[in-house]
Amino acid sequence: MNQDTIDRIRRFTEDRDWDQFHSPENLAKSIVIESAELLECFQWNGKDYDLDHVKEELADVIVYTQNLLDKLELDPDEIVNMKMEQNEKKYPVEKAKGNAAKYDQL
Amino acid sequence: MNQDTIDRIRRFTEDRDWDQFHSPENLAKSIVIESAELLECFQWNGKDYDLDHVKEELADVIVYTQNLLDKLELDPDEIVNMKMEQNEKKYPVEKAKGNAAKYDQL
Amino acid sequence: MNQDTIDRIRRFTEDRDWDQFHSPENLAKSIVIESAELLECFQWNGKDYDLDHVKEELADVIVYTQNLLDKLELDPDEIVNMKMEQNEKKYPVEKAKGNAAKYDQL
Amino acid sequence: MNQDTIDRIRRFTEDRDWDQFHSPENLAKSIVIESAELLECFQWNGKDYDLDHVKEELADVIVYTQNLLDKLELDPDEIVNMKMEQNEKKYPVEKAKGNAAKYDQL
Repeated sequence: MNQDTIDRIRRFTEDRDWDQFHSPENLAKSIVIESAELLECFQWNGKDYDLDHVKEELADVIVYTQNLLDKLELDPDEIVNMKMEQNEKKYPVEKAKGNAAKYDQL
Repeated sequence: MNQDTIDRIRRFTEDRDWDQFHSPENLAKSIVIESAELLECFQWNGKDYDLDHVKEELADVIVYTQNLLDKLELDPDEIVNMKMEQNEKKYPVEKAKGNAAKYDQL
Repeated sequence: MNQDTIDRIRRFTEDRDWDQFHSPENLAKSIVIESAELLECFQWNGKDYDLDHVKEELADVIVYTQNLLDKLELDPDEIVNMKMEQNEKKYPVEKAKGNAAKYDQL
Repeated sequence: MNQDTIDRIRRFTEDRDWDQFHSPENLAKSIVIESAELLECFQWNGKDYDLDHVKEELADVIVYTQNLLDKLELDPDEIVNMKMEQNEKKYPVEKAKGNAAKYDQL
């Protein structure tokens, strides 16, 4: 996301004095709650989803994810690169190619 | 995230030929699954969490979120700004300040 | 479940002195965490699931559900019948038959 | 639950011809979705929850759990006792007493 969008998310919380509710635990709960609402778009049918609804719920997941990054003062590039390094080792191309098995079953 | 990180996420999927598993539905399931693993860091205690573990699980949520954005060809700035506009209306500052109630109970 | 199974679940908690961790909130988190593990059995493929794994994860959901019923001193027959009465009204047979739409879209 | 309640749940599905939507995968999604709604009762505050709302969401979890047991023709007593046997071994009383650590950290 660009800086303007991130600033808008931060200002929203600040203006409402909601930082007090944003414990890491509450934000983790919120991310699950919103991602389950995203999943609900695909509850009975994985194909005919309402794209506008998907966009809204996915946006909610992204907003709470940003809130948690902010709360813990984490840099998304840093943590994602750290995790991608692990993933690249756990799923070597020659074993994982075209295979959805979990790493411990490759 | 910066473009390098996003490219790394995309290359990871491409190199393993995993796009075939990345239906929007499967990615929505994956986001819930990873956010529940994030929540597990706070399962019995909201205070004494293992920050390194939190970073890993949060990174997984971000990676699958990026995968879903890619799959649906969505721009995070566009969908988040659209949602923030809704949120700003649903939670007017004068009513929502310091209040964690849901919008329909404000 | 029969009374013996319920008693076994209760004794397990009691013997370990775990009631102190079983706040309604922590149990609600636990039910989500276990149901996401259940969903993981179907993450990339809805058809070829490992039935033994499904049984284990489903059992975990049932155990935490029983823990929450116990903690809140709720009778499952009472709350389920109350909810089924609502559901039967929200989804009248003539409208809902063969239709997976949500009640507000019937 | 007693047999009357279980029969009511089954009749509800049958009368609406909804068995066609009840794949194990869809029911697993549904259990997560409902347990996230249950968690929402505790989103910002673990203490001041609306008990009537908790009852409704917990009932939804129980109903979909019963649907999945039915779909897979599983006996809850059998799978729960199997899992409790595992749990009793993974969490021996002398190590786990008063300790919420995960079994691999006991």
